[in-house]
Amino acid sequence: MTESFHPPRRTLMGPGPSDVNPRILEAMSRPTIGHLDPAFIGMMEEMKDLLRYAFQCDYDLAMPVSAPGSAGMETCFVNLVEPGDKVVVCQNGVFGGRMKENVERAGGTPVMVEDPWGQPVDPNKVEDALKANPDARILAFVHAETSTGAQSDARTLAEIARRHDCLTIVDTVTSLGGSELRVSEWGLDAVYSGSQKCLSCTPGLSPVTFSERALERVRNRSHKVQSWFLDLNLVLGYWGGDGKRAYHHTAPINALYGLHEALVILEEEGIENAWVRHERNHEALRAGFEAMGLSFVVPEGARLPQLNAVSIPDGVDDALVRSRLLEEYNLEIGAGLGALAGKVWRIGLMGHASNRTNVLFCLGALDAVLTDMGAPIESGVAVAAARDAYID
Amino acid sequence: MTESFHPPRRTLMGPGPSDVNPRILEAMSRPTIGHLDPAFIGMMEEMKDLLRYAFQCDYDLAMPVSAPGSAGMETCFVNLVEPGDKVVVCQNGVFGGRMKENVERAGGTPVMVEDPWGQPVDPNKVEDALKANPDARILAFVHAETSTGAQSDARTLAEIARRHDCLTIVDTVTSLGGSELRVSEWGLDAVYSGSQKCLSCTPGLSPVTFSERALERVRNRSHKVQSWFLDLNLVLGYWGGDGKRAYHHTAPINALYGLHEALVILEEEGIENAWVRHERNHEALRAGFEAMGLSFVVPEGARLPQLNAVSIPDGVDDALVRSRLLEEYNLEIGAGLGALAGKVWRIGLMGHASNRTNVLFCLGALDAVLTDMGAPIESGVAVAAARDAYID
Repeated sequence: MTESFHPPRRTLMGPGPSDVNPRILEAMSRPTIGHLDPAFIGMMEEMKDLLRYAFQCDYDLAMPVSAPGSAGMETCFVNLVEPGDKVVVCQNGVFGGRMKENVERAGGTPVMVEDPWGQPVDPNKVEDALKANPDARILAFVHAETSTGAQSDARTLAEIARRHDCLTIVDTVTSLGGSELRVSEWGLDAVYSGSQKCLSCTPGLSPVTFSERALERVRNRSHKVQSWFLDLNLVLGYWGGDGKRAYHHTAPINALYGLHEALVILEEEGIENAWVRHERNHEALRAGFEAMGLSFVVPEGARLPQLNAVSIPDGVDDALVRSRLLEEYNLEIGAGLGALAGKVWRIGLMGHASNRTNVLFCLGALDAVLTDMGAPIESGVAVAAARDAYID
Repeated sequence: MTESFHPPRRTLMGPGPSDVNPRILEAMSRPTIGHLDPAFIGMMEEMKDLLRYAFQCDYDLAMPVSAPGSAGMETCFVNLVEPGDKVVVCQNGVFGGRMKENVERAGGTPVMVEDPWGQPVDPNKVEDALKANPDARILAFVHAETSTGAQSDARTLAEIARRHDCLTIVDTVTSLGGSELRVSEWGLDAVYSGSQKCLSCTPGLSPVTFSERALERVRNRSHKVQSWFLDLNLVLGYWGGDGKRAYHHTAPINALYGLHEALVILEEEGIENAWVRHERNHEALRAGFEAMGLSFVVPEGARLPQLNAVSIPDGVDDALVRSRLLEEYNLEIGAGLGALAGKVWRIGLMGHASNRTNVLFCLGALDAVLTDMGAPIESGVAVAAARDAYID
């Protein structure tokens, strides 16, 4: 007979999921009601307003896709790309590559703009690519590249796209709620995110928002959207703004309770305060890493405060360090991904997990394990350096 | 400032979600851990075994898709249908129509076999369709049609498909855990379900299982699967059997805790006991409805015990009855869907919600509301009839 599963208690400082606020877990355990219940529909309307606040947008379409961030990405591509469409895709990490896959599977032709992993997207290259491809219809890029910790200049990239009459598809999985994102002011068109990063909710939902001109393109497609589940023309019969709620698929009720609570918490703190908090904790973590002698992958000025990728010191056994942190400290940090596998650690300071306790704990645990393993680091100074950074 | 959402307490006796066992809600509120955490991976392996038990199969591939049942349906179609493939689709309610949409959007050609809403699929028509279309590669049908409450003979249909060298895609969204389903013994190939029906879990996950020959076809496709998110060739890098766990998308951790607990509860009860329980409560509900004078849409012998569609008496205001039940009794029953909209009510007795208390409560509440509205029913006798059915 199988027994109930009781997970260990971890501190989650990887690339997500991040530690979940207990208020959210409590909200998710409230009694399930029907997906067409008037009380639930009232909650959905609040959710849309709260998502507009989180995205800083005034678009009609703001809703959570009933599946993880990868499905949010696919929602943007399958609804906007038609067979034969040319899409300029920026790649500076794992997720740009995934965008390329999405374009191809939707029958489009990707034109790649590549930057080194760890660098932000270069706007000049994008400008050149759009000049060279006047028939491109969409520019797709990652605002906050979770695989490297690099932040690209979404405002400038969107401005270039508009000049070339392209819509933008923007990955904000790791930026939403953690660093400055102003969807309407920057004129982003189709934007997706995830619940389990800086919103500190459990994984499984993908907030998306579409501008009116993006939605117009979805409504006027010549081909049916290839996915029935993700077809916004159908999904909006349930989530749309006309007050009627037609059954499309059964919404993940309790997960939505959790996301609602996460967004209420964000509103209570104030989104700009949340951005400042992420920045402050990042600065302290950075002070600790630098004191220890660990260097960042991403150049200063393009670093995401919520995702810190640092190079693994020479000769150190990556997997052993991570498993010792997990076993001895119940602390999860992230491994490198793709081209950075085995070369970096990714330390998340996301949402609820972006706090002073986690910063000092993580530095202390990493210092202890690396020192014990004889790694070439400056021992015993990281925690004090971070503490001093908070005092400054 | 938006406030936390506190749902009302309902009794859910519609077509799903059904009442969730409090043990499952408690499990979902346990601390989130990482999707590559060794403890989580151990839970995933248990989950696969538990799903094999629920499906009564010994297939390697048994896993939950990270999205609702509609995405489980799409997983089956986009992985198995290639452009140009002919698929025989049986339609006897809403969900057969959705299968047709899925075939078309995957580039296939559906050949429809239609039966009246409320009737099971006619095996003779299927035999004829397969004879007339020797190039058909797949037979798709709904085992338990949630829109009507009709159960089709999955064993016979699969046997016919095999003789014609077709794979089967089978919708068991409403049957899994509620009525007899023996995937391996019946030789079903690609089977999907939902978490929120007879497993009594929250909505948002879709258990699927694929036979080896179905998986073989997925591995040997000539075209890439059109969905990146649902491509089993990629998803199995995370859920597959080789012990390695490559990141594909972030699994919905806490929702999976809930499904694990739901399956543990099913194993504790014993699946055949669960089937008998559903049958027994259905018999009592039936006795009550018949005493009241309400008639079933589906002929005896093809009725799903977990989904009871009864005709609305002449002259009765459908929407008013349902809203009075909701407001005065906190009881949700289901409206008709598609061709049966406005003509029937759908009363679910699914999983945890299939119990004597719910049967007597639902009959009592419906009797009170209909009597108060002057509906042409036999008043005041339904509860006693159901009670007597339990005593027999």
